Amino acid sequence: MTVAASPELESSVRQIGEELARLSGGQSPTLFERRWWSQAAINLAMHNLDFKTQLFRFIDMLPTITDDQRVVTLAQEYFGAMAGQAFGLGWGLKALAATGVGARLSGHAIRAQVEQMARTFIAGSSIADATPGLQHLWSEGKAWSIDLLGEATISDHEADRYRDRCLEALEMLSQVVQTWEPAPLLEHDHLGPVPRVQLSLKISALSPHLDPIDPEGSFQSVARRLRPIVEAAMRAPASLIFDMEQAETKDLLVAIFTRLFMEPPYRTFPHAGLAIQAYHRATAPDVEALLAWVRRREVPITLRLVKGAYWDSDTIRYRQRGWPLPLFEQKAETDRNYEALVRTLLEASTVIRPAFGTHNLRTLAYIESVAQQLGLTSSTWEYQMIFGMAEPFQEAVLRRGRRLRLYAPVGELLPGMAYLVRRLLENTSNESFLRKEFVESQSLTTLLSPPAVPTQVDAVLTPQGFRNEPLADFSNPETRSAMEKAIRNVRERLGQRWPSLAGDLTLSGPPLFSYNPSRPDEIVGSVQAAGEADVRAAIRLAGEAWRGWRVLSAVRRVEILRKAAALMRSRRETLAAWEVLECGKPWREADADVTEAIDFLEFYAAEWARISTPQRLGHEPGELNHRLLDPRGMTAVIAPWNFPLAIPTGMVSAALVTGNSVIFKPSERSPLIGQLLVETLLEAGVPKGVLVCLPGGPEIGRTLAQHPDMVTIAFTGSKRVGLDLLRQAATVAPGQRMVKRVIAEMGGKNAIIIDETADLDEAVGGVVASSTGYSGQKCSACSRAIVHEAVYDLFLARLREAIASLRVGNPEDPGTQMGPVIDERAQAAILDYIKLGSQEARLVIEGRVTQPGWYIGPTVFADVAPTARIAQEEIFGPVLAVFKADSFEDALRIANATDYALTGGVYSRSPANLELARERFDVGNLYLNRPITGALVYRQPFGGHRFSGVGAKTGGEEYLMQFVISRVISEQTLRRGFAPAE
Amino acid sequence: MTVAASPELESSVRQIGEELARLSGGQSPTLFERRWWSQAAINLAMHNLDFKTQLFRFIDMLPTITDDQRVVTLAQEYFGAMAGQAFGLGWGLKALAATGVGARLSGHAIRAQVEQMARTFIAGSSIADATPGLQHLWSEGKAWSIDLLGEATISDHEADRYRDRCLEALEMLSQVVQTWEPAPLLEHDHLGPVPRVQLSLKISALSPHLDPIDPEGSFQSVARRLRPIVEAAMRAPASLIFDMEQAETKDLLVAIFTRLFMEPPYRTFPHAGLAIQAYHRATAPDVEALLAWVRRREVPITLRLVKGAYWDSDTIRYRQRGWPLPLFEQKAETDRNYEALVRTLLEASTVIRPAFGTHNLRTLAYIESVAQQLGLTSSTWEYQMIFGMAEPFQEAVLRRGRRLRLYAPVGELLPGMAYLVRRLLENTSNESFLRKEFVESQSLTTLLSPPAVPTQVDAVLTPQGFRNEPLADFSNPETRSAMEKAIRNVRERLGQRWPSLAGDLTLSGPPLFSYNPSRPDEIVGSVQAAGEADVRAAIRLAGEAWRGWRVLSAVRRVEILRKAAALMRSRRETLAAWEVLECGKPWREADADVTEAIDFLEFYAAEWARISTPQRLGHEPGELNHRLLDPRGMTAVIAPWNFPLAIPTGMVSAALVTGNSVIFKPSERSPLIGQLLVETLLEAGVPKGVLVCLPGGPEIGRTLAQHPDMVTIAFTGSKRVGLDLLRQAATVAPGQRMVKRVIAEMGGKNAIIIDETADLDEAVGGVVASSTGYSGQKCSACSRAIVHEAVYDLFLARLREAIASLRVGNPEDPGTQMGPVIDERAQAAILDYIKLGSQEARLVIEGRVTQPGWYIGPTVFADVAPTARIAQEEIFGPVLAVFKADSFEDALRIANATDYALTGGVYSRSPANLELARERFDVGNLYLNRPITGALVYRQPFGGHRFSGVGAKTGGEEYLMQFVISRVISEQTLRRGFAPAE
Repeated sequence: MTVAASPELESSVRQIGEELARLSGGQSPTLFERRWWSQAAINLAMHNLDFKTQLFRFIDMLPTITDDQRVVTLAQEYFGAMAGQAFGLGWGLKALAATGVGARLSGHAIRAQVEQMARTFIAGSSIADATPGLQHLWSEGKAWSIDLLGEATISDHEADRYRDRCLEALEMLSQVVQTWEPAPLLEHDHLGPVPRVQLSLKISALSPHLDPIDPEGSFQSVARRLRPIVEAAMRAPASLIFDMEQAETKDLLVAIFTRLFMEPPYRTFPHAGLAIQAYHRATAPDVEALLAWVRRREVPITLRLVKGAYWDSDTIRYRQRGWPLPLFEQKAETDRNYEALVRTLLEASTVIRPAFGTHNLRTLAYIESVAQQLGLTSSTWEYQMIFGMAEPFQEAVLRRGRRLRLYAPVGELLPGMAYLVRRLLENTSNESFLRKEFVESQSLTTLLSPPAVPTQVDAVLTPQGFRNEPLADFSNPETRSAMEKAIRNVRERLGQRWPSLAGDLTLSGPPLFSYNPSRPDEIVGSVQAAGEADVRAAIRLAGEAWRGWRVLSAVRRVEILRKAAALMRSRRETLAAWEVLECGKPWREADADVTEAIDFLEFYAAEWARISTPQRLGHEPGELNHRLLDPRGMTAVIAPWNFPLAIPTGMVSAALVTGNSVIFKPSERSPLIGQLLVETLLEAGVPKGVLVCLPGGPEIGRTLAQHPDMVTIAFTGSKRVGLDLLRQAATVAPGQRMVKRVIAEMGGKNAIIIDETADLDEAVGGVVASSTGYSGQKCSACSRAIVHEAVYDLFLARLREAIASLRVGNPEDPGTQMGPVIDERAQAAILDYIKLGSQEARLVIEGRVTQPGWYIGPTVFADVAPTARIAQEEIFGPVLAVFKADSFEDALRIANATDYALTGGVYSRSPANLELARERFDVGNLYLNRPITGALVYRQPFGGHRFSGVGAKTGGEEYLMQFVISRVISEQTLRRGFAPAE
Repeated sequence: MTVAASPELESSVRQIGEELARLSGGQSPTLFERRWWSQAAINLAMHNLDFKTQLFRFIDMLPTITDDQRVVTLAQEYFGAMAGQAFGLGWGLKALAATGVGARLSGHAIRAQVEQMARTFIAGSSIADATPGLQHLWSEGKAWSIDLLGEATISDHEADRYRDRCLEALEMLSQVVQTWEPAPLLEHDHLGPVPRVQLSLKISALSPHLDPIDPEGSFQSVARRLRPIVEAAMRAPASLIFDMEQAETKDLLVAIFTRLFMEPPYRTFPHAGLAIQAYHRATAPDVEALLAWVRRREVPITLRLVKGAYWDSDTIRYRQRGWPLPLFEQKAETDRNYEALVRTLLEASTVIRPAFGTHNLRTLAYIESVAQQLGLTSSTWEYQMIFGMAEPFQEAVLRRGRRLRLYAPVGELLPGMAYLVRRLLENTSNESFLRKEFVESQSLTTLLSPPAVPTQVDAVLTPQGFRNEPLADFSNPETRSAMEKAIRNVRERLGQRWPSLAGDLTLSGPPLFSYNPSRPDEIVGSVQAAGEADVRAAIRLAGEAWRGWRVLSAVRRVEILRKAAALMRSRRETLAAWEVLECGKPWREADADVTEAIDFLEFYAAEWARISTPQRLGHEPGELNHRLLDPRGMTAVIAPWNFPLAIPTGMVSAALVTGNSVIFKPSERSPLIGQLLVETLLEAGVPKGVLVCLPGGPEIGRTLAQHPDMVTIAFTGSKRVGLDLLRQAATVAPGQRMVKRVIAEMGGKNAIIIDETADLDEAVGGVVASSTGYSGQKCSACSRAIVHEAVYDLFLARLREAIASLRVGNPEDPGTQMGPVIDERAQAAILDYIKLGSQEARLVIEGRVTQPGWYIGPTVFADVAPTARIAQEEIFGPVLAVFKADSFEDALRIANATDYALTGGVYSRSPANLELARERFDVGNLYLNRPITGALVYRQPFGGHRFSGVGAKTGGEEYLMQFVISRVISEQTLRRGFAPAE
């Protein structure tokens, strides 16, 4: 759809566009020059997506590799298969092309060429290095804005370092520019003087804790480091522009900006600015709010309008999470929004300094045309373009006498790669204007046409109609306040005695109290426990109720599960709040447990709907063979406390939907969440006796499992208990009528391997998240990091900083990243391991928490021997053992050398190593280049082997089959020489 | 395709056809009269196949039901759902139509109407009853041929009874006809006098042992009863015509006919005749051979050309078995063949009496035309039509002065139902000429056109490209002689010492001798057994070999299995012959074991090809989730002797194809077949150490299962051993690295329920086959028959006769139906149970076998209490316990009241009871209206629950999953904000 624009304006756009095109005079952007691309390479990267991916991935990884020979083998890994193909001769970097003819590659040459590529876009490796170039730009009539490239900030130390680099940059630059020639066009605009120095700020680099879940904590953490920078800028003088980043942080960055620059010392600063992204659906209202704010402030700001650089990753991330996409999905929608915002900003130029970041000829002409319409002088706005990009347009606007500022990154090659790749992607994308003009040579008429939005494409349907329940988006203020409110409500119900949910049975055990692990003196609630004598009565009850349940239609049982899912969805904050209080789960962990429980209900419902239909086998005439699935019978579910809702929901709902009756023993450490699950299922329509809740300790589980009528035992817990149950179940009890089945999910001793090609930003973050998430109390948690010797020290240093920066505390606080462990017994056991580890290995960091509650600070041991006890035994706490490996094979050997085989991870950018891991990393769930916890139902069915478990993966296709008997019914349909027609 | 016929002939056909149509003068066949069909009923039966099926099934069952009230409930079961629908008002039998308006049905009325239907086609309930009608026909100028209706012959007693009925009929009729008026047209033909009496013989009714596998035995058994009949016919005089039956017996019946009527006393008998079926592809050569034979005999015979009445059932049966169909698939091909044979017979009329059975106007005209062409007098041939059918054509040929004979069945309603239903089917089929003329009123031009054969339709492809290997068709003489030759060859190799197949290991156990159960003094061969000490070495060997095997591509392992299948196919008779000698299996049982082994190889190959491809989970952008299947590791296969090739092939090949290494212990009772399996797999390409054969006793199995490296134990055998293995495997051994998995298939105590609606012909046959097949030594064997009290005595009486008629003996003889049991130990154990049964219940029959060898005669106990030991314990021999049940529910209760749940069967024609069985008969494999053994791979995946087994069904989709670990690999593919395109 093309919006009808005013014909006059369009005519002006065309006219000015044609003039600008003339002014750009046949030049070609550096990027498309033959200097380091061959024409064939451009064609390949433009048209062969596989090649482009490989090429950019290779470039991205390259600076990490210090060993020249390794560069050569990696080039073979990346391009070996392709080099053999017909297109091998002409492609890619000139040096890389040599692989195509089989010549020996020089690692040094490859690196040198990539550095040369980077230099196109990066103004210098340091401020000092960049200064001559910046001066040259100035002399050509181009202003600039410095962007200090850096790694992702994952520790306070790194945040401090970024702050210090900003301060140094402001200091140095303000010195240097004083000697430069005046450039009147660049030093004044419609509102007054413009500083020669401009610094673009990456706000997320100023804190390891920038997280929309905790706006206050985020602000404090950022503001603490931001204030000295603002003060320095005011002194310099210099402009400061907040860059925009990922979609989740937009509102947070705007809030930090407006809050900080209303603080009295900074309110008068006239050179603060903010980037705004046209691809965001909410940018128009955001701008309205900012304009209202700036009028209140009474001191202007700069608004830098850009299209937005995170579209791909934001889109992928939101889609993965099932969140509604806050960005426009079509490039043309963004372009249209950009144009609308151009007018808004220009109209508001009495209170703001508009800056337009664009490399699009039409957009440039459009801005000119609107400004003309509004009768604005050309000093009212400035153009911003990226250093090294769209040089012909730079030239054109300069020749037209416009103020131009180049966005100029400064930094080392290594952290600069992410930036380089982003630029390469931008220039080669199908929708790049530069590509359209300079590679595809589209006609000027086409290029200057208004953005045309194509019809929307429908979303792809998921198989089986199942969709993962999206995690809460805590960047949404309503979501945050709902959670706060739920915690308040739960707090009001603390300490109550909960009713029994064991059918009509009166349980004979003692009261079972549930304490808040963050405040051990606080009773969350209590339930009546079952005595061993109650087990027999419960089984009788469930056996009677089973008769009706087993013959209920599959459709009806599926409906009940879906109803239960809907109920959980409607009360998700409340359920999560109980987890915060009863189990000490931080908000996100608690929320994720609830969504996983919903997923189990919906997935098993969908699966049962699929497989419960009798399956016809064979199509021979005269015979009708069908496979039917029947429930096995009585099922004991013995559940753990660490995923107090999701894990029992999975086991209980699988048993129920397939038609079994269930005696459910929640963990004695999370009896209340267990009750909430049972309540929900009963409310959804499960008849009372079909699901009986027997709170209690291990003796109840044991008694249940040994009862002759208990035919299926679904257990999740420790290896020791699981193996005991397996052994006990294999002994036939008097009166038993069936071989028992035990589905046991046991422990893990999970490792992440980090090789020398790994992206350490990702790897450190992934190891921290995997090992400290819910205080390491996940069977999937990482408790071993196996690091290639080439990056061992670097990894360890960054890991140490990141761990030290974690916020450990009460999980009721949204900013808390790690809460307590579950109870005193767990705390003592973990502390014993820490003591042991201190003897076995080198203690790198031992977190200490002084507040009351069962806290364990995150703890890291380095140089651990693969045979050490802390390398072999499951600790179930935030204790990480780090190993040094001398090769990837060595790392795999270490990783596989335990009794467990549950989860594992690899951070690597070596295709060969990733492939080796796929083949040989012997775990049930292997994760490549991502954290190793958080398996999603259906997408990552979960479960291990060796001593990590027996049975099919939860949340996967085979899981329900464990709860059923399969019967094959074969009817001979031929009678008296005739059979029904098929 | 229409064959170009001579225009003159076609012109004559049209002309005569039109004349015959005129002569048939507007009459309508009785069948289509309104007497008992409403017009709506005809329409429904013609156009609604479901209704037709239900109606004919109901009619078929009706005479069995003696209780009027039961008739009413069954009518509701059959038509209840339909009666509620719109078409309820007009359909069906008039009385049945009442269900449509909700009126109370009278069982008596329904029965009376069906009897009336039957009377249309059945000349009388006995010869005496039929005589007046026959005389009336004669007086109208119609000859007849009597067909004595009867139940299927399943015992010698029943065969004797049929013989006696034939003799009586000949006696009575030859008396009666003497007083009838002469009818010159009917009493003379071109070759001389024609007797007034003609009897059509159902040869299969003359022996319970008519079986093409044993032509000699079949001949003797039939001839013994046939000779007195021929002698009586010679005395009478009377013509005797052999009716043709199912396709498998065609050659056998022809052989019996030609052999018997060359015997000196019968060679001169000029009134013998044989029906020949035009639908048989081989009939033309058969006729050539018969003409050559009759010229040698020098005395004419009658050849009755019919289209053939077994097309549907033959086609279904051959398709079920995967045999090439020996019949024409298109009706028009049969018609064309019929016309060709008309000419052949008429041309040979100097040596034969041609008789043409047809109700097709064109065919009648065609015969007339060809005869005219050949210049034959009309006495040369006769027409045969069916009593009660095509009356207008009867009239027409009579008016034309032709000799007509009516095929007139005589017999009780109950056994006559099969006949009635066949007639109803014939008249209502889409291809029925009568339907075309009298219901669809097709034009005479169409009806008289030559048969047009439509283009062939391709066979339907089976899913997964898998097809069951067809059983041997022993009606084929080459198949029989191949088996005879194989047995001779095997006999020449008896007594040899077989080489070890345990890699390079030298086994330390004693020699293990294999004896022929039929001749215990005969050593079939011997192998070296393994000692317990060999187990460790074998596991080490297999462990080393595993390294290469596990990483071999799935494609390659699939190829190896397919190669092994091809090898077995190429040597199937040899393998079967070894089973005859080593295990005492009769031919068909031995052959079926080999084909099942081939099926396992092909099916698991196809399955692995299907599931080994990594399965993608989810399609979210930026993540790539794959499920991969890896082998678990070392697998012990502990196999039984009763399916000495198929069962170990299934277990071994499943473990191998999925990438495991295997230590295989064949049963000490069938070590040679075990060796043959290993030989075949090694020859097909399994590397030596990957599959190690360790012959030996239970101690070897135990040692294998307890070894810490043995991670999977696939066992088939007794419940006791299976439960022991399960218990032992659940104890973790020192050094063990994985929870062991035991796949155990254990015993059964399988029941067949026979209700009051059952077709006893089928039920008795099914129980006999299921309980005595391989001497009851199948886990699927029937050891209990639970019979409704209404048919208890009748069932028991027929069962007793059938069992008494079984041929027990040396399985090398193809006529043997039951051989010995496996060894002396088995014989002693079964005899103990027979002794016990004699105390617990009423001994109905105890088979006695006097020849040497481990024989047990088939034994039946009646009035068994459900709690008796012979009702509860697996006997594994040909011992059947019969129970009386007072209702179907009661029968189900008895059936379900054991520790086992393996197979079960129901013989019933009550839709409600069949449905109840589907819901409540708690067994792994339930069979309706068919024997309960012989599950086919893929079509009937096999296995039970309770104490009958744990694990997925063999030959089914889930089986291979037990031998693998499932690994889910999740790669985050988003790097630096970009991910590969999907």
